[in-house]
Amino acid sequence: MIKAIFLIQSPDSKGILATVTGFFFQRGYNILHCQQHTDSYEKRFFMRIELDASDMKVSRKELEDEFGKMAGSLGLEWSCHWSDYKTRIAILVSKTGHCLYDLLSRHLEGELNAEIPLIISNHPDMEKAANQFRIPFYFFPISEGKEAQEEKIRSLLRRFDIDLVVLARYMQILTPDFIDEWRGRIINIHHAFLPAFQGANPYKRAYERGVKMIGATAHYASEDLDQGPIIEQDVIRVNHELTAEGLREVGKDCEKRVLASAVKAHLEHRVIIYKNRTIVFTVER
Amino acid sequence: MIKAIFLIQSPDSKGILATVTGFFFQRGYNILHCQQHTDSYEKRFFMRIELDASDMKVSRKELEDEFGKMAGSLGLEWSCHWSDYKTRIAILVSKTGHCLYDLLSRHLEGELNAEIPLIISNHPDMEKAANQFRIPFYFFPISEGKEAQEEKIRSLLRRFDIDLVVLARYMQILTPDFIDEWRGRIINIHHAFLPAFQGANPYKRAYERGVKMIGATAHYASEDLDQGPIIEQDVIRVNHELTAEGLREVGKDCEKRVLASAVKAHLEHRVIIYKNRTIVFTVER
Amino acid sequence: MIKAIFLIQSPDSKGILATVTGFFFQRGYNILHCQQHTDSYEKRFFMRIELDASDMKVSRKELEDEFGKMAGSLGLEWSCHWSDYKTRIAILVSKTGHCLYDLLSRHLEGELNAEIPLIISNHPDMEKAANQFRIPFYFFPISEGKEAQEEKIRSLLRRFDIDLVVLARYMQILTPDFIDEWRGRIINIHHAFLPAFQGANPYKRAYERGVKMIGATAHYASEDLDQGPIIEQDVIRVNHELTAEGLREVGKDCEKRVLASAVKAHLEHRVIIYKNRTIVFTVER
Amino acid sequence: MIKAIFLIQSPDSKGILATVTGFFFQRGYNILHCQQHTDSYEKRFFMRIELDASDMKVSRKELEDEFGKMAGSLGLEWSCHWSDYKTRIAILVSKTGHCLYDLLSRHLEGELNAEIPLIISNHPDMEKAANQFRIPFYFFPISEGKEAQEEKIRSLLRRFDIDLVVLARYMQILTPDFIDEWRGRIINIHHAFLPAFQGANPYKRAYERGVKMIGATAHYASEDLDQGPIIEQDVIRVNHELTAEGLREVGKDCEKRVLASAVKAHLEHRVIIYKNRTIVFTVER
Repeated sequence: MIKAIFLIQSPDSKGILATVTGFFFQRGYNILHCQQHTDSYEKRFFMRIELDASDMKVSRKELEDEFGKMAGSLGLEWSCHWSDYKTRIAILVSKTGHCLYDLLSRHLEGELNAEIPLIISNHPDMEKAANQFRIPFYFFPISEGKEAQEEKIRSLLRRFDIDLVVLARYMQILTPDFIDEWRGRIINIHHAFLPAFQGANPYKRAYERGVKMIGATAHYASEDLDQGPIIEQDVIRVNHELTAEGLREVGKDCEKRVLASAVKAHLEHRVIIYKNRTIVFTVER
Repeated sequence: MIKAIFLIQSPDSKGILATVTGFFFQRGYNILHCQQHTDSYEKRFFMRIELDASDMKVSRKELEDEFGKMAGSLGLEWSCHWSDYKTRIAILVSKTGHCLYDLLSRHLEGELNAEIPLIISNHPDMEKAANQFRIPFYFFPISEGKEAQEEKIRSLLRRFDIDLVVLARYMQILTPDFIDEWRGRIINIHHAFLPAFQGANPYKRAYERGVKMIGATAHYASEDLDQGPIIEQDVIRVNHELTAEGLREVGKDCEKRVLASAVKAHLEHRVIIYKNRTIVFTVER
Repeated sequence: MIKAIFLIQSPDSKGILATVTGFFFQRGYNILHCQQHTDSYEKRFFMRIELDASDMKVSRKELEDEFGKMAGSLGLEWSCHWSDYKTRIAILVSKTGHCLYDLLSRHLEGELNAEIPLIISNHPDMEKAANQFRIPFYFFPISEGKEAQEEKIRSLLRRFDIDLVVLARYMQILTPDFIDEWRGRIINIHHAFLPAFQGANPYKRAYERGVKMIGATAHYASEDLDQGPIIEQDVIRVNHELTAEGLREVGKDCEKRVLASAVKAHLEHRVIIYKNRTIVFTVER
Repeated sequence: MIKAIFLIQSPDSKGILATVTGFFFQRGYNILHCQQHTDSYEKRFFMRIELDASDMKVSRKELEDEFGKMAGSLGLEWSCHWSDYKTRIAILVSKTGHCLYDLLSRHLEGELNAEIPLIISNHPDMEKAANQFRIPFYFFPISEGKEAQEEKIRSLLRRFDIDLVVLARYMQILTPDFIDEWRGRIINIHHAFLPAFQGANPYKRAYERGVKMIGATAHYASEDLDQGPIIEQDVIRVNHELTAEGLREVGKDCEKRVLASAVKAHLEHRVIIYKNRTIVFTVER
């Protein structure tokens, strides 16, 4: 079944829900799933609506145009997504492979509605993984100069029509220009339970602070390091038996599932960003 | 703010969502929260809708009647609840007090939108707890004969206009008659992760099976022991260091929070029962 | 069964384990449980040993003296605890009662090997809880002047032979003098997952940061606010549906169980502090 | 550092701990980690002891022989393991690849102290995964006849000097002969929280029962299906939005981490089996 997914946000006002659902009902669409959230503090309305688009009587463009007119009159921000389009992902990685392997395996097993046309790294180590999964690998060392290296990456992203950049333990800070061009389309995994342990060496600092749980956080990248909108977090219980190195080992599992979960939420068009927070709708399966 | 909450279920069909939201929009109600779920396996539609009912232009009865007409024409099963009504709870308990204390403390702290006009037991032990919280306590020993004892309980429930019976570790099996009269309005806590360890002595059997987690399950009581619709479950990690008695001790925390969570879901009108399953909607706070 | 529990720490060196276990074996004691941990980073050895002390042939003082000689020769820091002694707890609380009720109920249910001879507050609100559980309540408002108020508290702690101070949501910062006198014997609950959201209003800041889990941390109080040695932490999953106020509500459960768990670990003599970290041994039950 | 790990069990009696630690201390070994557990219900003693074996003055055989004499006089059951030996694993799989990919990726990333010389399947589907990771793949269809097929597998296991068989979603019931030959050396992953949903189609039955959490269980295979000693379990929260198929999807993550965790515990010689239960010691890292 082909589905159309609309993501909507606007200042809160009466009647948006009834108007939007009425719009689709009058045109004969079956609404498969409809979720709505009002942030009473921000006075803002958020909505995700999923339609059966199998037997449309009009073109996709016509539906979008018509919806756009209605949305314009109500002052809605919105986007529309079609379930038969595969989001094109570029994975950036450094030396550590656990998140990369996890994403590639999930992709191969059909868990991700996406294509992964390339992997980019500032180190040569993960070429072997790319080869195993037969995905082109690009190695751009930082020694070339940070800006030159980033320019190569950005040029590749354009050339491959990339929609989403996943930083799967890519241990470089991106420039504000890069972030700005790709705002809301770069997902990073931080190996700590943000806002605890922002920045470098979180496992070492977690050991020193003597925490009893460690965590991981997937978030959209923003100019301020580790401060972008959080999509998903999880933790794992630890104790005094683990050194910093031990924490790093057991933390890997947490990083993998948090990153995968965030990427899936993005691919399934379940995330809306507002200011520095996310609304992440759940999904019927 | 006074709220009206409608719980709705019906065979799935196009347009219910648009019709129901339209119904309230046309009458000028502000929809605070609307959740809907379609079970694609059962082909059944479920909905919870929460309205601001602060400045109603019609009486509650008029709104319900009007809604009832519309609902009748669509073939909906529904119920309507008003947030300023406090659900009247009777707690049944045996000798173990942790769930009882937990509910009474939460009630006193304002967590439960309810009144607790009485506590009933087949043992005298918990009278002290009832006295501490100044709630009338009724002691009906089973030695009087099971049916006679139950008749006394049922008569009290009627006399006190009870809406919900909570079995907070009440270690007696209720008769089918009792269950039938109170269907969907008795919440029981079972001290295991159902369907594992149904019936007696779950902690002993958990020890013998060598499980690595133990759990608790809150469910609506049904004729078949421990087989009614599940509302909430949770688990706690254990290891080889715990005997059956140790499991019983650490399990208490799990029982308390699972029962409290299920009772809250019921009090907030977030639960719909269909066949032997529940839909439990989440809530904005 | 009466038990003796020895807690031991020292710089790491070969043979401590064999020497200590040999010491008790040669004197005919049955070792019920022995746990040992070596921190390879700090090069430090930690040990907890639990003996059956039911039929001792010597006095407790004699055993401790003899052990002390051996320990002195090996350079061990140690303490000895007897299971038939009930630790004397003073609970300090402000206006919020959920942690207080939780501890009092657990105590009444026999979960805590302790006595609670008094409750102290800077507000009158929780007198009702103290009365319900028939525990003397002392109300010392801050308006008397911070130092004068603290002096009254400290004087009471001495008069009642208190061993452990539990800050069950006591919203005052203690003076360095107070902390210093009671070092390692004050347990505080912080309503966030430290080191995230140290200081005031953690739930509001958690909402603003858009975290997907909130937590609680029990730690020994130190001069630096919210930076003392962590004993226990836990988290609870949240989402965009919760405002700061909603986070506060759902966080209560987490605070209660984290504080209770830390207090139990202390009462069961399972915690050793070294620098700013804790070793928390598990226990057979 | 090369380590020797001794796993010991025996009927409980005074002095085993002191005698064993004394044995190693007198011979000048540094005990890195020593864990002991007494099951008070079974009156049985369990112990794991980890030595620094870097500069041994005697051969490994001499140490084992000498220990064997002492152990014999005390009536201990024991085994000795050396950390520089890589356990040889055969993975058996059917059509579903998520557990297989997870184990292969972890192996490549250096998480498993093991070699994986072969993968065996009753279906051809996973040959691609074997090829990606350059591991020999053997396809033995059941159509050859169950016993003949098993004979081929068992012959391969012998030829490749296999130590441990991992059933990574191998959907065939092994014969009692096979089980018996490999007792305590076959780890299976069951896609449910045992003892709930033993046998076939656990996700479908979980959906029908309406559980609010699903789980996975790794256990040693025994003659009775899904009833062998449990090594590790975990669960994941679910709700009414998931069909049986949805549960299957989200359950995969749980299966992967439970199986990996159990395999690691086995490879690190942290598991002792007694009757139908396991003692799983934790590990310092």
